[in-house]
Amino acid sequence: MTNSANQVYPVIWHNDSVSLIDQTRLPNEYTFVEIHRSEDMALAIKTMIVRGAPAIGVAAAYGMYLGAREIITSDRTEFLNKLETVAQLLRETRPTAVNLFWAISRMLNTAHATEGSVEDIKQVLFHTAQAINAEDLQTCQAMGDHGLTVLPKTPEKLTLLTHCNAGALATAGYGTALGVVRSAWHEGRLERLFADETRPRLQGAKLTAWECVQENIPVTLITDNMAAHCMQRGLIHAVVVGADRIAANGDTANKIGTYSLAIVAKAHNIPFFVAAPFSTVDFALANGSLIPIEERHPEEIYQVGDTRLTPEGVEFYNPAFDVTPAELITAIITENGAFAPGDLAKYQLKQCVN
Amino acid sequence: MTNSANQVYPVIWHNDSVSLIDQTRLPNEYTFVEIHRSEDMALAIKTMIVRGAPAIGVAAAYGMYLGAREIITSDRTEFLNKLETVAQLLRETRPTAVNLFWAISRMLNTAHATEGSVEDIKQVLFHTAQAINAEDLQTCQAMGDHGLTVLPKTPEKLTLLTHCNAGALATAGYGTALGVVRSAWHEGRLERLFADETRPRLQGAKLTAWECVQENIPVTLITDNMAAHCMQRGLIHAVVVGADRIAANGDTANKIGTYSLAIVAKAHNIPFFVAAPFSTVDFALANGSLIPIEERHPEEIYQVGDTRLTPEGVEFYNPAFDVTPAELITAIITENGAFAPGDLAKYQLKQCVN
Repeated sequence: MTNSANQVYPVIWHNDSVSLIDQTRLPNEYTFVEIHRSEDMALAIKTMIVRGAPAIGVAAAYGMYLGAREIITSDRTEFLNKLETVAQLLRETRPTAVNLFWAISRMLNTAHATEGSVEDIKQVLFHTAQAINAEDLQTCQAMGDHGLTVLPKTPEKLTLLTHCNAGALATAGYGTALGVVRSAWHEGRLERLFADETRPRLQGAKLTAWECVQENIPVTLITDNMAAHCMQRGLIHAVVVGADRIAANGDTANKIGTYSLAIVAKAHNIPFFVAAPFSTVDFALANGSLIPIEERHPEEIYQVGDTRLTPEGVEFYNPAFDVTPAELITAIITENGAFAPGDLAKYQLKQCVN
Repeated sequence: MTNSANQVYPVIWHNDSVSLIDQTRLPNEYTFVEIHRSEDMALAIKTMIVRGAPAIGVAAAYGMYLGAREIITSDRTEFLNKLETVAQLLRETRPTAVNLFWAISRMLNTAHATEGSVEDIKQVLFHTAQAINAEDLQTCQAMGDHGLTVLPKTPEKLTLLTHCNAGALATAGYGTALGVVRSAWHEGRLERLFADETRPRLQGAKLTAWECVQENIPVTLITDNMAAHCMQRGLIHAVVVGADRIAANGDTANKIGTYSLAIVAKAHNIPFFVAAPFSTVDFALANGSLIPIEERHPEEIYQVGDTRLTPEGVEFYNPAFDVTPAELITAIITENGAFAPGDLAKYQLKQCVN
């Protein structure tokens, strides 16, 4: 575990409420939004004040606690019924990231499994949300360690490429894909990070670039369509991205553009890594075709700041994610180690049997 | 040859000067810039008021005439020397598009080959610029006809994908890649055009979308990184792009992102067509690695309208073009027919021998 001067934590419990870094205002403004109620947390997730699959999980866990706190009853059954309503509200915010559903389920299961009074359950829910937050941070740091073991051995200093923001901002801190980048940087193995700007929401230009600047990691920003050209010119040694949901066979849903990047990496024999906590794997889904893909408002494409880019009369298609088939992925880096995509299910089975 | 209600001509001779559609102001403002002097034409090419390889050729030809008109001498040798200076000024505007150099050479060769007075030469140069303009229009319409012969036979109504703007705005009119799209539309073979927005300058969002709206061609705009996902979902039947320079072996330089698109098309077995006038082929270059690639100012990446997208402290790489290897190209559609990339040189040799 390494420490850095300007660590970024997007979700913090503070003054009896949740402080979220307002990621819609970065990089121009570094401000926080105070969330006191579960409804406000649902809105913050939906409007992407907090985003990134693991960070959404942490935020949703706190959202469940805030919702629990709002329920005024001492009747256990009534409490658990109302908590289900809170869970449903939070589930309806974003469809693709599985960490959302995983964190909500863990909170619900904890509530049902806890004996004692409603107040006792609320206390346990608070500590569970805190634990989900702390575990995610440890998970990211473990991913960083495991990532180092699978990165190319040569050259000594690597130039890595990432897409979107799978950084501290997308997690409890440190990051998944950017966690691997950070670990490489701290170990002296990173020459430079290339970051795709990541249209339409520009998380690479706005968030990944900002995180790198905070820690003086050298970063070169490119438009998404330049990645193949950079690979052709020999500028990239490996690609590391995050994941929003991984099917049992290793097919991976991640930010739109990931699939394209995986194809062009394969065409240049460049290793392509996915870094994600094990909770991102949805063993209920046999393959990636079953992962629901969120479509977002076309304004994300046609409007940048005050500028409208397109004339009236044009139609749009705005899928927020795509699915990269397992065969294009060199390894999936988790807190439990780096796996060939096909080995995730075998590992899980072994854990269940033991 | 088909006619359409709202035809677009980016370079027009009018009132003893050249009228250029100001393409930096589209789609919000449809305005013209009057060019009276060769220096102003050089600046218009450099700042992309006029852009697109064939349109640059036409504009440069008129620029040569404007420069010739400015030379005050009746001495033939002095005139030809000064015309070389005009040529050099125009050559230094954009390095990648070969049509620029081709049009300037044709104008210079014409000047040298014309007998008679300096005034006679000026007249011939004017008519040559007019001819280059008219020929380019005919060339585009011939490309449209030849394109129809190589597009997939099924389904009856095709959804095509294009990148950047290889349209009427990029030529004397009608377009190269968009010429093929227009011909398909006029023949009832087009269901819809998908257009990549084409970062960083957004020629797809701003220009291609605008051209389609003028003629009621159904158009769906996507970000560049969505193309692979659309192909995976079966939404695209073929890709058609333009070219800025084609090497003798068929390797093709075109707007950044074209190479990426060609790789992902190949991965989905989707035919990938390049449409370009034969003058785009540079037989002096054996392969694409010899094509100079223009790098442009990073502001194109970090600034959109009044909005700065990235924090200070980030570096940028902004190549304006990339090179697609011939093996990824199904056919190169020219005014002389559609060719397998490797057959361009054979055709040229046959023409020279005959």
